[in-house]
Amino acid sequence: MEKHLVSTNFENGMASVAHINQHSVTMDTTADNGGTDSGPGPKRLMLASLAGCTGIDIVSILTKMKVNYSDLKIDTEATLTAEHPKIYDHVKITYTIRIDKEDDKPKMEKAVALSEDKYCGVMAMFRTFAKLERKIVFL
Amino acid sequence: MEKHLVSTNFENGMASVAHINQHSVTMDTTADNGGTDSGPGPKRLMLASLAGCTGIDIVSILTKMKVNYSDLKIDTEATLTAEHPKIYDHVKITYTIRIDKEDDKPKMEKAVALSEDKYCGVMAMFRTFAKLERKIVFL
Repeated sequence: MEKHLVSTNFENGMASVAHINQHSVTMDTTADNGGTDSGPGPKRLMLASLAGCTGIDIVSILTKMKVNYSDLKIDTEATLTAEHPKIYDHVKITYTIRIDKEDDKPKMEKAVALSEDKYCGVMAMFRTFAKLERKIVFL
Repeated sequence: MEKHLVSTNFENGMASVAHINQHSVTMDTTADNGGTDSGPGPKRLMLASLAGCTGIDIVSILTKMKVNYSDLKIDTEATLTAEHPKIYDHVKITYTIRIDKEDDKPKMEKAVALSEDKYCGVMAMFRTFAKLERKIVFL
């Protein structure tokens, strides 16, 4: 059974450092919430996680399909519920990419569909609590 | 309506940089998955997000309750489902903390319960797809 372990230390008020394999990520909150803004807020990190996960799928699939591309960017825009605990209830994912050959554009559509339906675990988790919308913008 | 925006750029294969307000976080995957391991894997970042979120609640509540504490650490251990898309189906959260006064220990139990039940949005999102377990270890 595959397991993931992350250990997070709080040494300075609300700021924390997560140890993820040999990497570390600092998180914090803003001054109006009692933090020092020394790193991103933890909730927003979930949106980075979503973009990073689906992006890895896209890069992997386009590479296997021998599609030449550049300028891949994934924007995530999420709305929060009004009451505590505040969760993301609606997330728009916008994939922006430059594809060299016009004929390869449908392969990008295919890559996004495969990530959504089959590969991206983070997206599957998000789907249990949020409505997801997605768009592809070709540069 | 509160909104969170994160923009993530892929410039070097599977490695990406998420822009979260003025902060940036690098993500990547390991060499056996086609990456260069230049940052944490995106899925594991969700566990950091969970620890960072509940930890901010704990710090905030203990501070309001005037509890003297140190050495706060939050370990998250998650198991993944076997089939794609692989999601976290079981997460153990272990809070380790040193509380100066014996009498203040119940306040830590109270802080964890308040984060779980009322404040931690990331935990509320996790609860929709994973079974959560938690433990408090007093040093």
